[in-house]
Parts: sequence; C-alpha cells; structure tokens
Amino acid sequence: MFPDIDTPAVLIDLDVAERNIRHFQDYCTEHGLALRPHIKTHKLPRLAHLQMAAGAVGVNCQKLGEAEVMADAGLEDILITYNILGPMKLARLKALADRVPRLAVTADNPVVVDGLAETFAGAERPLTVRVECDTGARRCGVATADEALALARRIDAAPGLAFGGLLTYPAPGGVHAVRAFFQDARKRFDAAGLDIPVLSSGGSPDMWRAHEAGEVTEYRAGTYVYNDRSLIAAGACHPADCALTVLSTVVSTPGRSRVIVDAGSKVLTTDLFGQTGYGMVAGRPEFEVTAVSEEHGHLMAGAGTARPRVGERLRIIPNHACVVSNMVDHVVLVRGDKVVATEPVAARGRVT
Amino acid sequence: MFPDIDTPAVLIDLDVAERNIRHFQDYCTEHGLALRPHIKTHKLPRLAHLQMAAGAVGVNCQKLGEAEVMADAGLEDILITYNILGPMKLARLKALADRVPRLAVTADNPVVVDGLAETFAGAERPLTVRVECDTGARRCGVATADEALALARRIDAAPGLAFGGLLTYPAPGGVHAVRAFFQDARKRFDAAGLDIPVLSSGGSPDMWRAHEAGEVTEYRAGTYVYNDRSLIAAGACHPADCALTVLSTVVSTPGRSRVIVDAGSKVLTTDLFGQTGYGMVAGRPEFEVTAVSEEHGHLMAGAGTARPRVGERLRIIPNHACVVSNMVDHVVLVRGDKVVATEPVAARGRVT
Repeated sequence: MFPDIDTPAVLIDLDVAERNIRHFQDYCTEHGLALRPHIKTHKLPRLAHLQMAAGAVGVNCQKLGEAEVMADAGLEDILITYNILGPMKLARLKALADRVPRLAVTADNPVVVDGLAETFAGAERPLTVRVECDTGARRCGVATADEALALARRIDAAPGLAFGGLLTYPAPGGVHAVRAFFQDARKRFDAAGLDIPVLSSGGSPDMWRAHEAGEVTEYRAGTYVYNDRSLIAAGACHPADCALTVLSTVVSTPGRSRVIVDAGSKVLTTDLFGQTGYGMVAGRPEFEVTAVSEEHGHLMAGAGTARPRVGERLRIIPNHACVVSNMVDHVVLVRGDKVVATEPVAARGRVT
Repeated sequence: MFPDIDTPAVLIDLDVAERNIRHFQDYCTEHGLALRPHIKTHKLPRLAHLQMAAGAVGVNCQKLGEAEVMADAGLEDILITYNILGPMKLARLKALADRVPRLAVTADNPVVVDGLAETFAGAERPLTVRVECDTGARRCGVATADEALALARRIDAAPGLAFGGLLTYPAPGGVHAVRAFFQDARKRFDAAGLDIPVLSSGGSPDMWRAHEAGEVTEYRAGTYVYNDRSLIAAGACHPADCALTVLSTVVSTPGRSRVIVDAGSKVLTTDLFGQTGYGMVAGRPEFEVTAVSEEHGHLMAGAGTARPRVGERLRIIPNHACVVSNMVDHVVLVRGDKVVATEPVAARGRVT
C-alpha cells in the first residue's frame, strides 16, 4: 500500500475531496444558501481554489495568519471569524485589508469593535464587521438579539467600519436555536431600521440540515471537504467519503493482542471529539485506535481477529480531520491507489 | 506582560530550564546514573547542547527525523528508542550512522532486528541495538527476560549489529517492576555469558526515584527540562519550576462567568495526560482551562473571582509540555520578564 510513501503520512484522496466539494455545494445551491468553506480543515490554497471554482462565495479563516496565507494564494473574499485585538494583530489586519478586495471579521464585544474602529478610522474602504452571536455553543458570541443590535449600532456608527451581518457557530443539533435567534434579531433590527446583510451559520455535523434554519443566508463548513470519524458517527457521511486518512505501519505486535502502529498523537492528535478511541482503521472496522502516545498508536486484535503483522500498513480514519491537517508539514495527494503530489500544508501552525 | 510578543506564544524561561537541567543532572551524578535526556520535550538543539554540557552522556530521540536534526546540530551520541523498519527509513538510518559517532536504536521483535541486520551487514562500524522490554507500560517491548535474551542473541549473531543492552519505558510508579525485570534478565544473561552494556530506564514522573531501581545504569527523561502540570500533579516539581508556558490573550468574556482566551487545542493540544482540563493559569490557580476548541480556550470565573478583562494576558501551564513544543514553529526564549530570542523548534513535526 503506497510503497513509496514513508509512514506515518497524511493522505488526501483528491477524487473523494472533489466529490465532497461538489456534493455539498450542490446542496447549498439547491437551497439558496451561500457556501463559505472554512479552510481550517485543509489549510491548502489548492483546495480553497477548488471550493471557489465549485461555487463558494468566499472562504472562512479562523486566524489572521491563515487569512494571510489565503491572500498570498490569491483568494479575494476572506472572512476571519475571530475577535482580533491588540496592536500587532490590528496592524496586520490593516495591511491585509489593503490587499484583499473583500475582507470581513467578527466581533462579540465593544473592546474589539473599538480597536477595529480606531485602526480603520481613516481607511479608504471600511472594514466589514459581523456580530458573532451565541446560539447555544457557549463559546464566543453575544447572548441576545438586543446585545447584537447594540454592537451592530456601534459598528455602524464607526466611520471606518461597516456592519456586515450576524454570524453564529451553533451547538450540535442547534438548527432551531439558530432560527429562533435570527428571527428575533430580524424583528429587532427591522424595528431599528438596520439592515442585516448576511445571516451566517455553520458546522459540518448538521450541514445537511442547514436549510432548516430558515433565516440563514450563508453557511460555513470546513470538515465536509475531508469528512472524518466524527461525521460518520453524526450520520453526515460514510467511511468511503473520508478523503483524509493516516497511512501507518505496524511496528510491534507485543503480548497476545496488541498492535502498535507508528501513528500516535503527533499525527492523530488526542482529540476525542465525542468518540471512543482515536481513530478507526479504513476497511477493517474491527480495529479502533484505543490509545495513543506521541509516536505510537495502540490497536487490539480481539479473539478470532487476524492480527496485522509487523511491517503491514493500515489506513486510519481520524476522529477529527482538521486537527490532523495541522500536525504535518506536508500531505500526500492521491487518487485511489495513485500518488499525485506532495503538498505543503501552507496554513499549518498559523496560531496568531 | 511581554507587549512585544503576539499571542498565543509558547514561552521558554531559560533561567528555569537551566536550573531544571542542573538539578536533575546533579541527582543522576550523585546516584551514579548516566543521564540521557529525551529531546522530544524541547526539540531544540540549543537545549540539547546545554544538557550535554551539564553532563549528559548523549541524547534520546523518538524518531529518525529528530535524530537527523540533532546530528545536523553536531550531537555525537544519539539513541533512537524506536523500532525502525522499511526500506526508506533503513536507508536514512544507514546514512545517519555514517555521520554520527555513537548511534544506537532499539528493537523488540525479530522482523525489526532482521531489517537492521540486513542493512548493516557490510557496515564499517556495527550498529548498536538495544532490546526494548515491557515492564508494565504495555506499549512496545518484549514481555520476559527470556524473550529479551533470545532477541539479544539474534542481535549479537548479526555481523553488522552490536547488542547494546536493555531498555524500558516503565509504567508510572513502575520502579520496582523495572528492578525485578532487570534482575531477572541479569541472571539469565549472566548464565548465557552475554554482557549487558547498559540497563536503561526513564520517565519524568518517577525521576526522583530513579535510583530505587537498583539495576538501572542509565536514565532517560525529557519533560524534566520544562516540567508541566502533569509533573506538578505527580509531585515531581512546583509551578515555579515550569519553564514552558503559553502566553495568551483574553478575547471574549461572554455570559456571566466565561473567559475565552486565544490559546486552544492548536497550542495547548487536547492531551489530558491524567488531568482534568487542559492547563492551569500561572499565578492564578483558581483558573483552569476547562475546554478547548482549535483556537479558543475556555476558563470559568467562579463567584467572587475577579474575571480577567478582554485584552488581558494570562500565562498557561499546559498539562504536557512535550506535545505543546510540537505545535509551534517557534518558541520565545525569555529570562524572567525579558525576551532573549525567538527560536525555531528545529525538530518539530518530524513524524517519520
């Protein structure tokens, strides 16, 4: 299995990724939703361009550093869904705005809005700022439509800023909470005479239900491009839809049933993401990665199960594809059994 | 707090790291133990050289790629504690052996030994191979002293290989199991007339009890150079001994008690490492990182606790220092409040 690739290696099957891109783009188009893919999953300009070519309205980044990589690669519509603050980041954001035709960020508090307002006070083009709303995920976001309106007014009143709409990252299963929040906001904003240009939701686990949150006009999803074990568990895809796998080699078969592979937390990560264990073996559902240390993954061969031999290779579907992309400097692009190219993960490790 | 450093950033306090290096080296010297630091914790040639200068006998790497970085930096005694197999890795190992004066690897099964034997059959210098023994950690390693002897004989019989001793990575609290295994092995090897050049154990949690495993002649530890929350919990160090911290900024304080910082799993990782939560705040023990997503860390301000403001900076002591080193391209070297340098993490991400 891929004898020319040393292990562990992160493989991306382009046939599968392209199919995933088309599939969800078709869904969004059919339901009148603008699709804005989150590039954190792949961190690859090549795939961002494929997503744009398929019909995406722009890309979503989580960090300024990711957006800089995407801008370098020629992406022209970038949303950074993060509270950007502090003089160093604000200076970088200003420089980025000068070279990205359509750049937007989010904010959920006045400190962040005021920092953006000060930075863009004399700007040629106003910076688009969306208000992040908490619809149940309990991470960032204003808690009520009233708070959203207050923050939107603050943005609207700042000469260098333009209010760009509302945005939420919902809790799993939170489709109806999103609808309720946005409906409430729509009423209050209408009464206040403030237009909401975009109502944006996101998340891959519930992506095939995106149309049920009636108010939503834009959907942000990342993992759909690769899929992973968590999305199989969520019923959002099948194992054959998983474009990202970790090629690993059995390095030891100690004791009666242990199978030790060379993919540990340094590739698979320790992200459980709601699963038990750290990954499943593609084509051999009887094997789960039950434990990891940094450079070792543990599998158990149950009674009656043929135990893989030392030197044998296994492809592991990780719990969470996005975090695996961030662990390696390069991924290997394949189509079925054929190696296409080795691709640098250009936006890997951009933590600021 | 460090206004010139953007966040999140991994800070290494060199004063603390140097003290940790001296402290454990003194302990090993006092007890007649050879110290072989595991470089996986820091992945920095600079610190490997400091450890050597302090009296270490050589370094320990987990992957060939890490060893290549250390060889590039001039390290001359390198042990790779891993089963190396497959034509690509064996070719790299052969090339490495040609330029490292003292190179050794481990093996726990005949497939690995035979691959090494074939590769080094015509070598000028034999490759030193140690036998890895399982003394309770249930990862790699032969299960009994008899198996260890059989594998040692296989190594000893191979013209290109030299048997280099026994090695174990013990389970936490496994000091006595190590002694029992090594005592048993000593008897069997003596009876067979085979010398055991080195008896190597390791692990930072039990490092201050290393001398209790009477047979051990060499100790391998990595985390002691930085320390971390897991070692505080194990009673092996105090918070002030933690050289690695993650500088982060509060980006949002939504709801009644949440504090959201810009250090998530992309820096802290999701490695629980036996702890609850994902890190503790240095100097503010009332705060624990209770949840992480990729770019966000969650803290809770309990009733009566002063909640940090948006823009405020916090230093987080992570659960597990080694895995944090692997998440960033650079660390910032500091001494107290002063920034010394930005240092590339040269051996980061070397997965093969």
